[in-house]
Amino acid sequence: MKSVIGISLFSFFAIVASDDVYKLETKYIDVPIDHFSYTSDATFKLRYLINDTHHDKGGPIFFYTGNEGNINSFAQNTGFIFDIAEPFDALIVFAEHRFYGESMPFGNQSYVSPKNLGYLTSQQALADFVYVIDHLQNEYKSRWNGKKLPVIAFGGSYGGMLSAYIRMKYPASVLGAIASSAPIWQFNGLTPCEDFYRITTGVYASYSPKCANTIKNSWKAIRSFTQTPDNKKNLTSLWKLCNTPSTSDDIDKLVGWYSEILVNMAMVNYPYPTNFLTNLPAYPILQFCSTLDSYTWSDDYSLLKSIGDSLQIYTNYTKSAKCNDINETSSNVGESGWDFQACTEMVMPMCSVDSDMFENAAWDFNKYTNDCSKNFNVRPRSQNEPILEYGGKDISTASNIVFSNGLLDPWSSGGVLRRINDNIKIVVLPDGAHHYDLRGKNDEDTSSVKMVRSFHAKEIKRWLKKYYENYAQVHVI
Amino acid sequence: MKSVIGISLFSFFAIVASDDVYKLETKYIDVPIDHFSYTSDATFKLRYLINDTHHDKGGPIFFYTGNEGNINSFAQNTGFIFDIAEPFDALIVFAEHRFYGESMPFGNQSYVSPKNLGYLTSQQALADFVYVIDHLQNEYKSRWNGKKLPVIAFGGSYGGMLSAYIRMKYPASVLGAIASSAPIWQFNGLTPCEDFYRITTGVYASYSPKCANTIKNSWKAIRSFTQTPDNKKNLTSLWKLCNTPSTSDDIDKLVGWYSEILVNMAMVNYPYPTNFLTNLPAYPILQFCSTLDSYTWSDDYSLLKSIGDSLQIYTNYTKSAKCNDINETSSNVGESGWDFQACTEMVMPMCSVDSDMFENAAWDFNKYTNDCSKNFNVRPRSQNEPILEYGGKDISTASNIVFSNGLLDPWSSGGVLRRINDNIKIVVLPDGAHHYDLRGKNDEDTSSVKMVRSFHAKEIKRWLKKYYENYAQVHVI
Repeated sequence: MKSVIGISLFSFFAIVASDDVYKLETKYIDVPIDHFSYTSDATFKLRYLINDTHHDKGGPIFFYTGNEGNINSFAQNTGFIFDIAEPFDALIVFAEHRFYGESMPFGNQSYVSPKNLGYLTSQQALADFVYVIDHLQNEYKSRWNGKKLPVIAFGGSYGGMLSAYIRMKYPASVLGAIASSAPIWQFNGLTPCEDFYRITTGVYASYSPKCANTIKNSWKAIRSFTQTPDNKKNLTSLWKLCNTPSTSDDIDKLVGWYSEILVNMAMVNYPYPTNFLTNLPAYPILQFCSTLDSYTWSDDYSLLKSIGDSLQIYTNYTKSAKCNDINETSSNVGESGWDFQACTEMVMPMCSVDSDMFENAAWDFNKYTNDCSKNFNVRPRSQNEPILEYGGKDISTASNIVFSNGLLDPWSSGGVLRRINDNIKIVVLPDGAHHYDLRGKNDEDTSSVKMVRSFHAKEIKRWLKKYYENYAQVHVI
Repeated sequence: MKSVIGISLFSFFAIVASDDVYKLETKYIDVPIDHFSYTSDATFKLRYLINDTHHDKGGPIFFYTGNEGNINSFAQNTGFIFDIAEPFDALIVFAEHRFYGESMPFGNQSYVSPKNLGYLTSQQALADFVYVIDHLQNEYKSRWNGKKLPVIAFGGSYGGMLSAYIRMKYPASVLGAIASSAPIWQFNGLTPCEDFYRITTGVYASYSPKCANTIKNSWKAIRSFTQTPDNKKNLTSLWKLCNTPSTSDDIDKLVGWYSEILVNMAMVNYPYPTNFLTNLPAYPILQFCSTLDSYTWSDDYSLLKSIGDSLQIYTNYTKSAKCNDINETSSNVGESGWDFQACTEMVMPMCSVDSDMFENAAWDFNKYTNDCSKNFNVRPRSQNEPILEYGGKDISTASNIVFSNGLLDPWSSGGVLRRINDNIKIVVLPDGAHHYDLRGKNDEDTSSVKMVRSFHAKEIKRWLKKYYENYAQVHVI
């Protein structure tokens, strides 16, 4: 069994580049802890990063709606915004999501209980962002004769969901949104629960059916091999684990850790080395499968050895790791925050079935909520909450949003890939991974990502043109 | 000085008709106290009224978004919905606004402090309504092969604001909205603060310039006449007050009570007798001004006597009142709830100037917030909060809303009277009062209200036609 909570994680942002490529100034702004009641007037300091090098006159604010992690990590992995800031005379802002990075509403008490952590919701985060935008529009209006700068939201993954949502809910604050790899349809009843692992399997199989098949065989091998204490120790050595798994819960956790790595490699299967999730070579799945396919295996032991060796592509590409900690994916605050969100609003049903390469796992909402209760002392109020809040499939009234998805990204399962209306654009990168289009340009870039990026720029230009034309009509008493 | 808080009241709904004309079943539904956090899983019972006599198959839900008062009062004064339910096969629902009527989140402790009362916000109310709608759509889907019934929101005054807002914020839940006399632009910087009293003055002056002039002279008369204790007693007798005003605060309160009556008569200046705010004759302003004009006055005493006698049109039309309680306008829960809302989100700047018939009063936000702090132990976070939340003048992305306003309604000052886009319709009743169009049909109805009501019906029909045509496109996995 996989960790039900584990599989709903987008990613873990443990790595922050030591040398920042993109320079930003760090600022803080006081925002209400609770935008939607008046039970208290408490505020906290929300962090945002800003670069106004290229900003001029009525140039827009390019506003990244921060995800479930330290905002620095996103700023350093969203070079697209920096690449297009100059031609647009844009002000660059990366706003941190509350309860991540340094933006802790209750300091080091933020995570102690739902009494505090309960204010970690997407709606509160959107209201934070609207607050920051208003502040910036006031601060910079003197550069444009007192007028209100237009805002373009950008976001990838959960951040992409937020950029789409902020345009839908606060269209007066945000003119348009580039929502990259935003699985806004990964909710109850909107997408078959098996799609996520089906797509992941397809990525591996497209490199090598043999590789996918070896993986498919590995789950049973782990389960049967680890029946004895000796073999548990053997696996610890084969997979270079820091601790020997002893209970069946430990084995579940190990399986969860392993499948998450497989998913993560698909997410960041970029054509050049990156350090977004961890240090990785170009096309990590190609590397992983090439290594795996080079082994021959005949029993559980040799199968698990081949997997263990191949996993090092992901776990130890820099050859600096001493051992693999299977708790690592939940060791940092960012992750446990997302787990809480997944236990409240962001319930994203997932399952694996016979036809994919993962261990079978049904979607069991009952077990899911019990785990939530155990881990966080909360339960989702309803699986349908995000659908009521954000409209589910019915987003026909939305406008000025580009939904982009890499078709080799597991999260494209919940992406908007179908025409909605004339004012929502759907673009796909047939060979793209998770929010690849938001990354800075690179010599190894595919032709599809170049096309998509120029499409984004063209759309932004179109939205802005209309804004400047209509400004006088809207902003009058 | 008028009570600054007093003037921002929409109305006071002390009167509930003893014999209900419109029959509805009372139901209750458990809704979360806080939709926007997970700090607690507490719920409360929200009341709604329902009538499914005419509902059939895919017929829409006509959903009244309750105002700042007991929902019964609105149900009995919104006959338009009942009048058109049959031809539309519609299910009729009136949902009560939290913290009003019976919908008390903390029972009789709901109003004790901002710790409880702080959950009285428009956003929470909208989320309540979305919750009720979802519940009803599930409950009634069997009548239409499991499909989702379309919802048309209706509302007048603050309820009209909510019906427009719910369409803007939750377009997947609400197909369209009839927002009658909804002053969504009565916020900071969107409308000149003097418009409200300017319009009210115009209504009186249109009946009789002499009447408006007498009123204009009365403020100074009150102030100078009540300098002595004897004259305070004389005024008590002239105006049939229950208690003699003694302090200057009492005189301020008296002035606030009197100007509120003048405003209220303009709001409910309907062409036939009504009992919405209180028992009143047809065209109460005509009655009031006819009476007032029949007097000749030469000094403060005779002027105040003529006003006192004329006010009886409003205060004692049924000849059953013993005396006038100048606290009456804030004696019931509904009002104090609205005062709280006006002290948090709903800050609506108003002022009176030389050119209107009211006592001069500047808009003094500082004094306003101090009064709020004194009365409720809260302060508005910012005058701009509702503008950030609901877009202010920039509602260009909204659709399927009819904004109707009576031009003789003081609240038309903050109404949407200007073209926004092709999908928002602006209609006016040149001779109409406050949400007159939502009332049931009457032999005395003006031709303009008949036209507006048939316009509403035509728009609803158009929205529904499109919904039924597009249903299959949206509601698929």
